[in-house]
Amino acid sequence: MKLFGYFRSSTSYRLRIALNLKGLEYENIPVDLRTSEQKGEAFTARNPFGSVPMLEADGRDRAQSMALLEWLEEAYPDPPLLPAGSEDRYTVRELAHAIATEIHAINNLPVLRYLADPLGHAQDDIAIWYRHWLSRTLGPVEQRLAQLHTGDFLFDRPGLFEVVLLPQIYNARKFDYDLSDKPHTTRIEAACLALPEFERAFPDNQTDSPDYIQPAGE
Amino acid sequence: MKLFGYFRSSTSYRLRIALNLKGLEYENIPVDLRTSEQKGEAFTARNPFGSVPMLEADGRDRAQSMALLEWLEEAYPDPPLLPAGSEDRYTVRELAHAIATEIHAINNLPVLRYLADPLGHAQDDIAIWYRHWLSRTLGPVEQRLAQLHTGDFLFDRPGLFEVVLLPQIYNARKFDYDLSDKPHTTRIEAACLALPEFERAFPDNQTDSPDYIQPAGE
Repeated sequence: MKLFGYFRSSTSYRLRIALNLKGLEYENIPVDLRTSEQKGEAFTARNPFGSVPMLEADGRDRAQSMALLEWLEEAYPDPPLLPAGSEDRYTVRELAHAIATEIHAINNLPVLRYLADPLGHAQDDIAIWYRHWLSRTLGPVEQRLAQLHTGDFLFDRPGLFEVVLLPQIYNARKFDYDLSDKPHTTRIEAACLALPEFERAFPDNQTDSPDYIQPAGE
Repeated sequence: MKLFGYFRSSTSYRLRIALNLKGLEYENIPVDLRTSEQKGEAFTARNPFGSVPMLEADGRDRAQSMALLEWLEEAYPDPPLLPAGSEDRYTVRELAHAIATEIHAINNLPVLRYLADPLGHAQDDIAIWYRHWLSRTLGPVEQRLAQLHTGDFLFDRPGLFEVVLLPQIYNARKFDYDLSDKPHTTRIEAACLALPEFERAFPDNQTDSPDYIQPAGE
């Protein structure tokens, strides 16, 4: 499998975590969003949405991270990203889709760029926008987690919820968002970050990150 | 089942279509988004996201339309909203999630309201924003539909893709968006609108719509 992504793209980060949790080997191919490489002809010929991540897998170029995660779960069911029963699966998907549609989609790079140009907003206003959408949905997510009496993870192992949550929390910290009133969210964050599957997927540990440090001996 | 929704909410419209396609009876309970009823205490006690649609079904209050649609498919599999094989299911979900996250989420009412206040944009700028996100994703969707040699529907019957597409096309027409260069999209739209499951779900046919006309004899 080849994963076309960008170190700081949260949807690419989702895919890296999911592939690692499933124990699937993949080649990471950086696509530079700073130079809009994803909008170039070579890339859009393969992915008309001009977006990352794109996964080349089983003979097909695949876009759209939420669709990709469901496909991975169907094509490579073991270990699972979703619990077995439809009620528990609903519990996971409700929270994952809340974050994907009501935080990520609105705070995604193309939207932030549009706010700057043509709309002319300064970086400070954009940061307020960013934190507004975080608050609006992380609050209810925390409430749900409290009601569900979660432990280290939403269910017994990290899955679709954690795959979607962790990249948003990474972004929240980059935007100096205060998470001190979110003990359930940050407990799950800490448990995930302690796992090698999440560590290997971490943006700063990708070769296209300016923070990348080559491991000793390589 | 009780569906708490709003006639013009495109995610409520998704649920109405899906419930109709599955032949599930439901009571429609209007929630007035104009007065922010969905943010009131009575409603958020049941749905902390303060969003419609909310479906009261099988003893549980359920939010987040994409999660709800997957739950409906698992709990009430027949007739299906997704084809049988994982490749075809991926085909459907790629397009459905592109529309859900890259059009709908960015053009959703809370975002448009934030652009007006606090950001101070006039209705004309907001309409340009709206059409920008429609273009950006309906173009690639049309390309995919052309590649897939679709007929009246993406596969042999309307399903998750059409459930998510039709409400966005309804909105596109409200915003005077030119669809004349999207023959595949509009062919599918026409085929769907001819079906009673879609007609009953249509915003103007809901009791809370100002355009609602009570059927003769009722």
